[in-house]
Amino acid sequence: MNHLYLCETNPRCEKQVSYQEVKMSKGLPKRSEDYSLWYNELVKRADLAENSPVRGCMVIKPYGYSIWEKMQAEIDRMFKETGHTNAYFPLFIPKSFFSKEADHVEGFAKECAVVTHYRLKNDPDGNGVVIDPDAKLEEELIVRPTSETVIWSTYKNWVQSYRDLPILVNQWANVVRWEMRTRLFLRTTEFLWQEGHTAHATKNEAVAESIQMMHVYAQFAEEFMAMPVIRGIKSESERFAGALETYCIEALMQDGKALQAGTSHFLGQNFAKAFDVKFTNKEGKLDFVWGTSWGVSTRLMGALIMAHSDDQGLVLPPKLAPIQVVIVPIYKSEEQLAEISEKVNGIVKALRAEGITVKFDDRDTYKPGFKFAEWELKGVPVRLSMGPRDLENNSIEIARRDTGEKEFFNLESDLAQKISGLLDEMQTNIYNKALSFTETNTTSVDTYDEFKKVLDDQGGFVSAHWDGTAETEDKIKEETKATIRCIPLDAKEEEGQCIYSGKPSSKRVLFARAY
Amino acid sequence: MNHLYLCETNPRCEKQVSYQEVKMSKGLPKRSEDYSLWYNELVKRADLAENSPVRGCMVIKPYGYSIWEKMQAEIDRMFKETGHTNAYFPLFIPKSFFSKEADHVEGFAKECAVVTHYRLKNDPDGNGVVIDPDAKLEEELIVRPTSETVIWSTYKNWVQSYRDLPILVNQWANVVRWEMRTRLFLRTTEFLWQEGHTAHATKNEAVAESIQMMHVYAQFAEEFMAMPVIRGIKSESERFAGALETYCIEALMQDGKALQAGTSHFLGQNFAKAFDVKFTNKEGKLDFVWGTSWGVSTRLMGALIMAHSDDQGLVLPPKLAPIQVVIVPIYKSEEQLAEISEKVNGIVKALRAEGITVKFDDRDTYKPGFKFAEWELKGVPVRLSMGPRDLENNSIEIARRDTGEKEFFNLESDLAQKISGLLDEMQTNIYNKALSFTETNTTSVDTYDEFKKVLDDQGGFVSAHWDGTAETEDKIKEETKATIRCIPLDAKEEEGQCIYSGKPSSKRVLFARAY
Repeated sequence: MNHLYLCETNPRCEKQVSYQEVKMSKGLPKRSEDYSLWYNELVKRADLAENSPVRGCMVIKPYGYSIWEKMQAEIDRMFKETGHTNAYFPLFIPKSFFSKEADHVEGFAKECAVVTHYRLKNDPDGNGVVIDPDAKLEEELIVRPTSETVIWSTYKNWVQSYRDLPILVNQWANVVRWEMRTRLFLRTTEFLWQEGHTAHATKNEAVAESIQMMHVYAQFAEEFMAMPVIRGIKSESERFAGALETYCIEALMQDGKALQAGTSHFLGQNFAKAFDVKFTNKEGKLDFVWGTSWGVSTRLMGALIMAHSDDQGLVLPPKLAPIQVVIVPIYKSEEQLAEISEKVNGIVKALRAEGITVKFDDRDTYKPGFKFAEWELKGVPVRLSMGPRDLENNSIEIARRDTGEKEFFNLESDLAQKISGLLDEMQTNIYNKALSFTETNTTSVDTYDEFKKVLDDQGGFVSAHWDGTAETEDKIKEETKATIRCIPLDAKEEEGQCIYSGKPSSKRVLFARAY
Repeated sequence: MNHLYLCETNPRCEKQVSYQEVKMSKGLPKRSEDYSLWYNELVKRADLAENSPVRGCMVIKPYGYSIWEKMQAEIDRMFKETGHTNAYFPLFIPKSFFSKEADHVEGFAKECAVVTHYRLKNDPDGNGVVIDPDAKLEEELIVRPTSETVIWSTYKNWVQSYRDLPILVNQWANVVRWEMRTRLFLRTTEFLWQEGHTAHATKNEAVAESIQMMHVYAQFAEEFMAMPVIRGIKSESERFAGALETYCIEALMQDGKALQAGTSHFLGQNFAKAFDVKFTNKEGKLDFVWGTSWGVSTRLMGALIMAHSDDQGLVLPPKLAPIQVVIVPIYKSEEQLAEISEKVNGIVKALRAEGITVKFDDRDTYKPGFKFAEWELKGVPVRLSMGPRDLENNSIEIARRDTGEKEFFNLESDLAQKISGLLDEMQTNIYNKALSFTETNTTSVDTYDEFKKVLDDQGGFVSAHWDGTAETEDKIKEETKATIRCIPLDAKEEEGQCIYSGKPSSKRVLFARAY
């Protein structure tokens, strides 16, 4: 008999209903029935984020933000280990800056928030406040959608000689892109991100930097997010506006759609030329500086959620879980709680000494059954529970979130060591599960009919030959909604024929329907 | 003879002049001659920040940002230790939200950046891009000057029962206030800050929270910034727009002007009422929630710089120095450098093992004299240098930034222990120096003549009796430019007469001219 039945009481039995209870009162929709609804509900109910009163902007809630903080900490460490430092550039960009790089203005300036005034005044008719027409800006300011322009206009003053290079700078910032259709984390009008902007004396160095940062992103995704990714190069039409080459990492979500998780751009001398950033090289000659930029955003939160979670809620890889272990006491009397707490306090201490983050959920305002469901929804990797029988048996129940498996553990053995090993095992297991999913859902096809059938029946990545033209790419996108996610870095040289045009092709590229 | 003269060569002797050299080629202005110019030049030349192409907005440069990161890390840790978590709320606030709290709109909405459009288009006349008149927002959006309104509109959905309280949330964010006269770090149109916003079931709890956060700020200022502060309460006219009480910390700068370094507000039920945030209390009755908000900003960088620095440059307290120890090799041949480097590598390792951040400045593109001046300007607490004679003597030269003292240290003793002790001593010394300055420049006066004389001759804090009316406060401000910085928490009950009106007063308040 499972001792947990003791307390599977109705969580709504109390008079004062709390926000938590309202939120938990319905189960999640199933992925198989409505993946999109499942995602939205999960994000809200697991306290990750919610829509704000401002169209397209989200509120990142404390629990969601604490996961983002863990991501930030690891990414920031990896940046610093590769020689980068952080800085901060202005939120606003003068409108004229965008016009300086032709592709860039096409790609970005058109869907941006525009600041036109700097003052409000009391409405003469008494209806609150209105814009003060006397406070119109001479030149409109754009809320940054990305910061290449303002940063390169700054670098102009930082660079005179080769001795001022390289500049290896990153910033953590908010950016705004006026999206018409938004989804929490995946596509929001305002989002948080980091944007690296580097300047180099040689082309080779800049190319190497942009490739290095793609690998940094891939390593982060695989090692911390437990999310396998494909490393590759974007086709010309999917390239960043203003770049000569865009490197990317692409991941597969459980509904078979791909998600671009990070990009790194080799900018050539485009922005240096647009903002006149020259330096004297070792030979004493003037040359334009070479540039890169690279970024990941709160979109990674969306990827993390969609890559691993299930119908019960979030599944978090232990390395990014803000709470790795939750301990729930099961008791009927205050005396029992006191006995359990005493034992649990020792356990908490031992786990923390191993570097494990633990929460003892001794709230007396909620029942154990409610707590179990809440921590399951929130994806805490390991749940420990201790009840009266455990006290008798000197045991504790261990439940792991990824597989749902439970076991009783005798406390005469070393629990901290056990949990530490279990967390490692779970990290690997979650990665392997996602890897196996990605592999199973990557299909090589050689005809357009096969291509369409795989997309419709199974989804996933479709590996196919392509003739390298934007026309074919556009036609395929128009007819199937699939885009070229990337030309994988490890694509083999292989003679073939484009599935659409029949023209010759030397390697396969990865197509998918994508977020 | 000082062996450093070996290399005090002209830093401009090379052909390719770098940005560093241009920046270093002139000395700093003196504080005694032009304090304001000294500050501006120091901020720019020490690579802390510079003006951006966007009016009133600054670029925080990598070195400046690394100091801000150290501040953030400590403050964030202190917030978490007091039970707070981070979250993120939108950059934009609908205009109508401001009108909901009458004092707040008066205080903030009027000098804000206003977003009116969400799209640009190609200029039909071919001159870059222009606003698309079809993309006008129905309701203008304000770029947040502070987030009480958007946060309380969100809290409304988070709170139903007393069990949802307290909410202890902080956010790290950028905010915009359209300042007419700006100064790097001290007053900029955009700045970085944290804003805590908490919600409580009782008045007492909210008051206690706002007082607690004032003490957290004071502890941070004194322990990490080595900057003594006065803890106090603002007079009604200096209170935050929408608060019932504002607690603050005030510090004295070297020019005798005061600087408000942090504020914590007890908001009463003002924002709960404005946004209809009610909860069911333990007795089952509906009540409005009690609130607080509190913040510190990149203004702290200005305070840190002005509190301790000298005519040679920045003086950083060791606890906030991104580089605590710099090691400069002095050599004539590659062989000498190799010998020195080998020895230095061991030292670097030993210092890092003690948790000390060290930089070995082995750039071959700059001479030692140039490096000495650069690290002095940048405020690195300890400079070690090793030359050929040191190799012979198994010694190293230690120079401390705060006092300028130098000594030779025999490497047979434990250098790491020595430096570790020295850094602690310097942290204390810098604090004590600032404390002594603050004490020396705090004057009690009993007449208005004395008051004016002290303000003009010496500056600093002036402790005086005040009748408690806004009229008197305004008159004094108008006539002397001094404002009431705060009513100190530790002010003694003492019968006296207002220096201006002669009316009775029960305690002294602190006046000063302020930033």
